[in-house]
Amino acid sequence: MRNYLFLLFLVFTSFQSHGQKSDDDAFFIKEIHDYTLAAGECYDWLHHLTKNIGHRLSGSTTYDQSVGYASSILSEMTLDKVYTQECEVDYWIRGSNKVSISYAGAEGIPLNVVALGRSKGGNGVPITGDIIEVKSLDEVENLGKAEIEGKIVFYNRPMDPTQLRTFNAYGGAVDQRVFGANKASQYGAVGALVRSMTTSIDDVPHTGSSYYEEGVTPVPGLGVSTQDAEKLSELLKTGKVEATIISDSDDAGKRPSYNVIGEIKGTDFPEEIILVGGHLDSWDVGEGAHDDGTGCVQSMQVLKTLIALDYKPKRTIRVVLFANEENGLAGATEYARVSNEKGEFHLAALESDSGGFTPRGFSIDGSKDVLETYAKAVNEWMALLEPYGLMLSTGGSGADIRPLMNQGGLLIGLRPDSQRYFDFHHTAADTFEAVNKRELELGAAAMTSLIYLIDKYGLPKVKG
Amino acid sequence: MRNYLFLLFLVFTSFQSHGQKSDDDAFFIKEIHDYTLAAGECYDWLHHLTKNIGHRLSGSTTYDQSVGYASSILSEMTLDKVYTQECEVDYWIRGSNKVSISYAGAEGIPLNVVALGRSKGGNGVPITGDIIEVKSLDEVENLGKAEIEGKIVFYNRPMDPTQLRTFNAYGGAVDQRVFGANKASQYGAVGALVRSMTTSIDDVPHTGSSYYEEGVTPVPGLGVSTQDAEKLSELLKTGKVEATIISDSDDAGKRPSYNVIGEIKGTDFPEEIILVGGHLDSWDVGEGAHDDGTGCVQSMQVLKTLIALDYKPKRTIRVVLFANEENGLAGATEYARVSNEKGEFHLAALESDSGGFTPRGFSIDGSKDVLETYAKAVNEWMALLEPYGLMLSTGGSGADIRPLMNQGGLLIGLRPDSQRYFDFHHTAADTFEAVNKRELELGAAAMTSLIYLIDKYGLPKVKG
Repeated sequence: MRNYLFLLFLVFTSFQSHGQKSDDDAFFIKEIHDYTLAAGECYDWLHHLTKNIGHRLSGSTTYDQSVGYASSILSEMTLDKVYTQECEVDYWIRGSNKVSISYAGAEGIPLNVVALGRSKGGNGVPITGDIIEVKSLDEVENLGKAEIEGKIVFYNRPMDPTQLRTFNAYGGAVDQRVFGANKASQYGAVGALVRSMTTSIDDVPHTGSSYYEEGVTPVPGLGVSTQDAEKLSELLKTGKVEATIISDSDDAGKRPSYNVIGEIKGTDFPEEIILVGGHLDSWDVGEGAHDDGTGCVQSMQVLKTLIALDYKPKRTIRVVLFANEENGLAGATEYARVSNEKGEFHLAALESDSGGFTPRGFSIDGSKDVLETYAKAVNEWMALLEPYGLMLSTGGSGADIRPLMNQGGLLIGLRPDSQRYFDFHHTAADTFEAVNKRELELGAAAMTSLIYLIDKYGLPKVKG
Repeated sequence: MRNYLFLLFLVFTSFQSHGQKSDDDAFFIKEIHDYTLAAGECYDWLHHLTKNIGHRLSGSTTYDQSVGYASSILSEMTLDKVYTQECEVDYWIRGSNKVSISYAGAEGIPLNVVALGRSKGGNGVPITGDIIEVKSLDEVENLGKAEIEGKIVFYNRPMDPTQLRTFNAYGGAVDQRVFGANKASQYGAVGALVRSMTTSIDDVPHTGSSYYEEGVTPVPGLGVSTQDAEKLSELLKTGKVEATIISDSDDAGKRPSYNVIGEIKGTDFPEEIILVGGHLDSWDVGEGAHDDGTGCVQSMQVLKTLIALDYKPKRTIRVVLFANEENGLAGATEYARVSNEKGEFHLAALESDSGGFTPRGFSIDGSKDVLETYAKAVNEWMALLEPYGLMLSTGGSGADIRPLMNQGGLLIGLRPDSQRYFDFHHTAADTFEAVNKRELELGAAAMTSLIYLIDKYGLPKVKG
């Protein structure tokens, strides 16, 4: 609360000290919003990306199509540069996945499941075991081999519905998905089922990355819909439940993939790069709309809007659509490696990867010193952004831009309203229809406004 | 902006001056949110209201069923009083409505339309006329009888997409729907088509109230989907377009209807009433989910939450679910009449009738003097509500509580995020599925928090 009041105080004092400058900026920020809401193209781009291309798993042909499509949009904007940057990704094949359960009086009842990303099945050979329900990774350790061996571990700790920001609830539960199969295998289990990462009770199972440590025998990991997780938990109270997993998910080697990059060279400080981006890959379910088609089209809209309004940036504004955020971060890693090698400096990087919902503000990321300096600088502008319902907070930026932290620039995440995100995240329901045009556009306009202010006024340089 | 800064300043100073009091309140407001998000019943109630009952036009049997259902929910809460209050409503029958157009090379192409509320058709006798497109009521006056007589007037001024708050865009366009058929008839037109009230371009036509002045010959008025409005406008650029309207919408006399009321009597100041409510009726399309099933179940949730948390109100807290907001306001009028007759005093009234979306704050309503006094009082609490993303603004409360303004109490509207509202408002798309559980619950929790603060600390009394 103290920090929050400090921010309010800064807003109050900073706004008073400006004058004409603020008026001009307020006018241009209004123009940005008017253009985006009345003539923005991002919703149409998203339609093509989701409906004509679809989901875009790293290494898939649809991913490659999306690289072509995004490059073509950027090429039509007459930027100073549009190019792709190669990286190498692990290709994973979902294959076919089924889980059925048997219990007193019933045999072979199917569960609503989806294989977790990177899960390795048993080449389609049925795996059978009694189900044991746990609430945490620690519980598996505590139960030990005696209780776990030969069984299928069912992780069923729900996301906490009382968290106002759903991402916090996700953060408090997702260890089950990421490490659940690995931990189960370490104690001799033959498979893992994980309650889906959502506070909704519905029949849509969620995928997402999982991970096996080196030397651990991979056992299949599958996400179970929350509705089926609740039913399964009830059944387990009445007696023994046996599950059979048939899964042939598997790794399929390395493939080349690509970041898509476009930039407008700055007139005065071309060496100061302001990055705006999202990730172009998605899981291979749904259409990768909110995760993260929206972030990609919003980022491209930022450049399009600035060009349409005839704004000539002083600094280099670069859009980056990253490859492979979902299962490896190879795109982000390669981007940062090359950038460091070239001695580049990212003054700021803004990622939109929290869904295309009504923007509520920005979150900034970094060490305590960096945060304090930047919070002070950005607060100079917040009075201009608050009429649009935007607030500044700390606590995360984006997985793709974090590798740039060592350059000491400001890392920013767009913070949309988070209430609906986990209705769609990593599921078949993450489709174009789940995105509202105005909400998407307001997010793009918020991003453009902040990029404009950073470009116009610059930022203090701090070493991270 | 000046007012906004004043509010910020008040927040800042008022928060500093409190201490223990704020801590206790912050704790209870957190409890309100936790309970509503983890155990709130409003989403289940909404499911029953929309799926088992459905839309609820004034005077319909489904409206009466909803009176029974809401009464039963309130009765189970062991309030001090639960009752219904009779009023008399105009019953209107939509009947069957069709519009087809003919133009060079095409005959009888259907348009996607819905009769406007209270529209009177021609008893099903076809009405034919050339279409004339206008952008305003004034344009009809300026064109005059010479251009309008015998024609079908097509009002096609879109809602302004650059308005941040969609209700402002609605306010700038809705005169076409309310007065369009009436104005057209005054100049001799035989019917009116009105572009639907949404910034979306889609195939969902919108209904909503319309109105004939006494002495004006009623001609049918129909809402056209925005997609068809755009197409029709393009066609009209190429030449003559003739329309045939077949409609038998009509008035069907008076019927009894009912407000549903429940209250907890205050322990210390029972004569100070704090009202919380929404309207139980809806248009006869869709399921009346966002308009205004959500406001009704949120209002009932307020009482349920306070009871569950064992809060004993000092003042009388009364939930009112109003009849007939959509086409007559008979419920609100009768409620205020009886209240005034009894000499009651509503210290505050809070209506939720802007959809069940993420709450962004509250808006207060009244004369300048009243607003200033109340804004100052409510701002004392805003630091407690801002962590939940809630801000205070002026500019409207709710149609059902406005008749209470003469009592001089504070009138408040819940302000949810408005971006998606006109995707659903008055359409077949306003269904349960369009409501997110958490967004609905957060609205209910915001309402409960403010009602709690008003009850605990009271408000200065001002004559309106």
